[in-house]
Amino acid sequence: MPKIINLGEILKSLKELDPIKAIEDGFVAYSQGKTVVPPVGELIFDDPPGDMHIKYGYIKGDDYYVVKIASGFYENYRLGLPNFDGLMLLFSQKTGQLLAILLDEGYLTNIRTAAAGAVAAKYLAPSSVKAIGIIGAGTQGKVQLEYLRGVINSQEVYVWDINPQAVSDYQEEMNNKGYRVHQASSPSEVAAKANLIVTATPAKEPLLRADDIQPGTHITAVGADTPEKQELEAQILKMADVVVVDSRSQAQNRGEVYQALKAGLLSLDKTRELGEVILNPSLGRAADSQLTVADLTGVAVQDIQIAKAVYENYLK
Amino acid sequence: MPKIINLGEILKSLKELDPIKAIEDGFVAYSQGKTVVPPVGELIFDDPPGDMHIKYGYIKGDDYYVVKIASGFYENYRLGLPNFDGLMLLFSQKTGQLLAILLDEGYLTNIRTAAAGAVAAKYLAPSSVKAIGIIGAGTQGKVQLEYLRGVINSQEVYVWDINPQAVSDYQEEMNNKGYRVHQASSPSEVAAKANLIVTATPAKEPLLRADDIQPGTHITAVGADTPEKQELEAQILKMADVVVVDSRSQAQNRGEVYQALKAGLLSLDKTRELGEVILNPSLGRAADSQLTVADLTGVAVQDIQIAKAVYENYLK
Repeated sequence: MPKIINLGEILKSLKELDPIKAIEDGFVAYSQGKTVVPPVGELIFDDPPGDMHIKYGYIKGDDYYVVKIASGFYENYRLGLPNFDGLMLLFSQKTGQLLAILLDEGYLTNIRTAAAGAVAAKYLAPSSVKAIGIIGAGTQGKVQLEYLRGVINSQEVYVWDINPQAVSDYQEEMNNKGYRVHQASSPSEVAAKANLIVTATPAKEPLLRADDIQPGTHITAVGADTPEKQELEAQILKMADVVVVDSRSQAQNRGEVYQALKAGLLSLDKTRELGEVILNPSLGRAADSQLTVADLTGVAVQDIQIAKAVYENYLK
Repeated sequence: MPKIINLGEILKSLKELDPIKAIEDGFVAYSQGKTVVPPVGELIFDDPPGDMHIKYGYIKGDDYYVVKIASGFYENYRLGLPNFDGLMLLFSQKTGQLLAILLDEGYLTNIRTAAAGAVAAKYLAPSSVKAIGIIGAGTQGKVQLEYLRGVINSQEVYVWDINPQAVSDYQEEMNNKGYRVHQASSPSEVAAKANLIVTATPAKEPLLRADDIQPGTHITAVGADTPEKQELEAQILKMADVVVVDSRSQAQNRGEVYQALKAGLLSLDKTRELGEVILNPSLGRAADSQLTVADLTGVAVQDIQIAKAVYENYLK
């Protein structure tokens, strides 16, 4: 019988483990070509509108393979249900046996994305972060800030969201966790006050303009994971001294880099994969005055690594 | 929380339900173009050799969608483990929520294949079956016979397998279930004695020759599900008055029909889908003297239908 690990047990495990190292190792394996990650499986529904995605794969020579299934049904709120659901399945790469079912209800996707943001900040942030900027005050904006705690020594936070209530809620919740959260009146104000910025919105029009950005800033953009979404004006990627992606092949089709490529403002060979920067940090930030951008669209190796980390912690 | 239904509960449900009607409805929906079934997802492993397949999809307008994950690791017997493992996941098509996890360890794939064999026999067998022939005395050869009970009124069985011990075991087990099982010395002897034959082997060379086959026989071939496997000499499909497939598009690339197409002995437009025959039985057998062949390579709509049937019975 597989282990069946529910969300409560997953949350308990997450308090006991540091996913940042696991995610870092995953990016390295990915950039070294040691992962097998087939194209995403997909079902689309019209009535009511929804979608289901299957991401799966493995690191060669590892003990496991992982299948993640995630759904998004965008009218669920009418029924009082969450829009997202999902689970991860962990199998033995030696026998094919199902070892564990992680009933994470989509939560581990948030965590692995936040851990990737922390990895990007660890390698690309300027040496002194005066304040952290958060654009998008939803769940992802919260977990991004929490996972930065391990790598960035700043409690000053400027936050903006299109919904002012979300900003107030964010301020109250994160102040209770030891941050000093300031409400920003615009994305531009966030960029003026913070030199480490995380964008985590579903925006389809740029929120940050090139004119907003101070020298010496690092921006991690995690919101845009489709060809339609965009949080950064493409000119920002042209201005940047270093542009890092999680997956160069994926960046050709989605995210901020895709938008800049399409606008003719960037060439793909200027980009570095996060795994390449981890292996050779000299490919990252060379001076505190530089502008760096990390565009993270999410790769299945993160799912593999977070599922493994939770499972192995659970077995302890 | 999803319902978690283990193999014991699944076996209990299977005793209480008739999957043949569910599978029949599935073939009809499939042939009417009412199903959405994306290409199969796949992972391949070298050391140890193994594979994992993801089959998934839904019937338009239905309440559910289903994801089936199945693995085959062919050296597991060395570890005293079954070669196969798997599970089925049932989701709501209205909300994307995970409703049930069916921990069937691959068993429901056997059942849905056996139920398809029964559907084929129901529509294609001659009016009087003097004896049932089984070629391949493994698990599939057993469940095929058991599911024929509902549609074919004969307890006389002739069985052959490459492994004589498997034939003896089959005889003992199935005699205890009320059949009169005779050991055949060759596939040819099976064809001489039986006018309803099921082939359920992993053979890569034909076991039944055109010269073996009596007029008025129906053959259901379920073993060949890849481009390499073949149980029937291709000439048999040329001789047949009616050739039925579960999926015409799949038959172009695998199974007995694929072999006959490749040999230039059959054209695809001669074949009928099982769903078409169910809707219009005049497309099937027209006389007791005809030779009919059903080539079943397995389609995801069967997985959808069996998972639904078990889940709905479990809820009762």
